[in-house]
Amino acid sequence: MGEHTYGILGTGALGGFYGAKLQKAGHNVHFLLKSDYPDVKQNGLIVESKDGDFLLPQVQAYNDVGKMPSCDVVVVALKTTQNHLLQQMLPAVIKDDGVVLVLQNGLGIEAQVAEIVGNIRVLGGLCFLCSNKVGPGHIRHLDYGQITLGEYTSNYYPSGFTDKMQEIATDFENAGISIELVEDLLLGRWKKLVWNIPYNGLSVILNATTDELMANMHTRQLVEQLMFEVILGAKSTERLIPESFIQTMLDYTVKMKPYRTSMKIDFDECRPLEVEAIFGNSLKKAEAGGVNLPQTRCLYQQLKFLDRKGKR
Amino acid sequence: MGEHTYGILGTGALGGFYGAKLQKAGHNVHFLLKSDYPDVKQNGLIVESKDGDFLLPQVQAYNDVGKMPSCDVVVVALKTTQNHLLQQMLPAVIKDDGVVLVLQNGLGIEAQVAEIVGNIRVLGGLCFLCSNKVGPGHIRHLDYGQITLGEYTSNYYPSGFTDKMQEIATDFENAGISIELVEDLLLGRWKKLVWNIPYNGLSVILNATTDELMANMHTRQLVEQLMFEVILGAKSTERLIPESFIQTMLDYTVKMKPYRTSMKIDFDECRPLEVEAIFGNSLKKAEAGGVNLPQTRCLYQQLKFLDRKGKR
Repeated sequence: MGEHTYGILGTGALGGFYGAKLQKAGHNVHFLLKSDYPDVKQNGLIVESKDGDFLLPQVQAYNDVGKMPSCDVVVVALKTTQNHLLQQMLPAVIKDDGVVLVLQNGLGIEAQVAEIVGNIRVLGGLCFLCSNKVGPGHIRHLDYGQITLGEYTSNYYPSGFTDKMQEIATDFENAGISIELVEDLLLGRWKKLVWNIPYNGLSVILNATTDELMANMHTRQLVEQLMFEVILGAKSTERLIPESFIQTMLDYTVKMKPYRTSMKIDFDECRPLEVEAIFGNSLKKAEAGGVNLPQTRCLYQQLKFLDRKGKR
Repeated sequence: MGEHTYGILGTGALGGFYGAKLQKAGHNVHFLLKSDYPDVKQNGLIVESKDGDFLLPQVQAYNDVGKMPSCDVVVVALKTTQNHLLQQMLPAVIKDDGVVLVLQNGLGIEAQVAEIVGNIRVLGGLCFLCSNKVGPGHIRHLDYGQITLGEYTSNYYPSGFTDKMQEIATDFENAGISIELVEDLLLGRWKKLVWNIPYNGLSVILNATTDELMANMHTRQLVEQLMFEVILGAKSTERLIPESFIQTMLDYTVKMKPYRTSMKIDFDECRPLEVEAIFGNSLKKAEAGGVNLPQTRCLYQQLKFLDRKGKR
């Protein structure tokens, strides 16, 4: 059994996958669930994965954060649309010398978490994971899985490589999850947004997969313009992403299998969209840096309309 | 019978409506049709209108522009997506001292027409008409109907009020169609685009009616930003639209009945969209004037994607 106890807040396609991998590798893992609780309590978790299927017939499942033990590492794997719950959840489940690991999309979440947990260290992870939940406690892992890991410091001042990052990385790597460490979490998050802002946004607005967006010269150009805006946003927070990164991302996307983005999956399943974490927070950061991102704002406003409409 | 013979190129919801009104008022009207030709040849035109229904059991119908007589006034009532046909159509049907009246949406069409017809005078009309074609030769007029009329001169130099405008206006007004004359056609066209660009674009992209776009604070704000961009576009061609015009248009739209825009109707009926006339030409004009309209461009690129997709 590993040294660290893990608490997984949100046992869905992402939290369920990483949590199951950690438990399989011998860690003591506690899973918070909502609607799937009775099923998972009874039957455990099933992971169908391109790296090999496995079943965990018994997991430590909870439907109430108050019943969970304090954990060394609390993994925030909720959708950001649920983050109003963190205020109550985190203090209940984190050890005094624990670590919160935020595995969510978007910008600025670690700062919000740090405000809640005070002196407790906060790490952020950017997941490149393609997985779905296909039934209660039943996860289908389609592709990828690596995590880019960085540590949050006040105002996102670059942390460098810390011991804490190394410790967590070791746990994940022993569980078969490849980890890339970054010295500058904010830069890492902006770099992920270079992909997420155009593809997540346009896939929902235009009801399109990544390959369709790339096959049309107009949307391909719009993707490029949006990527350029994100680089401007990053620059307004003093994070320099070279323009050549745009071409790298375009080439990478063309080579991918046709992909339904996470926001498109949320939209299709009538779940709330992570518009604020991905778009709203980026626009606010850029605005604070004196930069206007008109096309990103256009997507933001369109998504806010569609998000509201989806709720009806 | 009126003095002028009229040729209507495109006998749909718009051309059919105005042409029928003119014939009913005693003018000699020739209608060009495509798929509706046999029906209309046989049964004439039906107009259901809020101003009173009427039937024209016999109309002069053609399916070939070569068989039409030369007309004093040729009304271009095709969708702009058919404008590649004008090169061949117009010379065949216009009298040497005739007038072409362009009743289409968007920017720059009169200049294209003037290039085709050489010395013949070209007028432009902006139609505020809410009508649909509900069957072959069967038009349902729901609301409005007035036309803003101006004359084209080289490079859209303001024409002032001309005798030709007055003549045509008299014909239309005698047929029960109210006419507003403008001294500056380009200004009139930009002013219409202040409405058309946001509402036509967003109604298609977001699958929304005008009231839905106005009820959501984010799209309402986006509408305003787009209107502001159109005003910047107009300014780049030395046409000044006061910013207060934005509020006027917003108030006007809120007071309207929930409205499905013409582009949305085209989209729902799987017809090609007038993206180039409305968006593409406006962007080109603004670009030539040294102005970038990023959110208008975003809509343009999104619409080009959806237009292409609709064609599949």
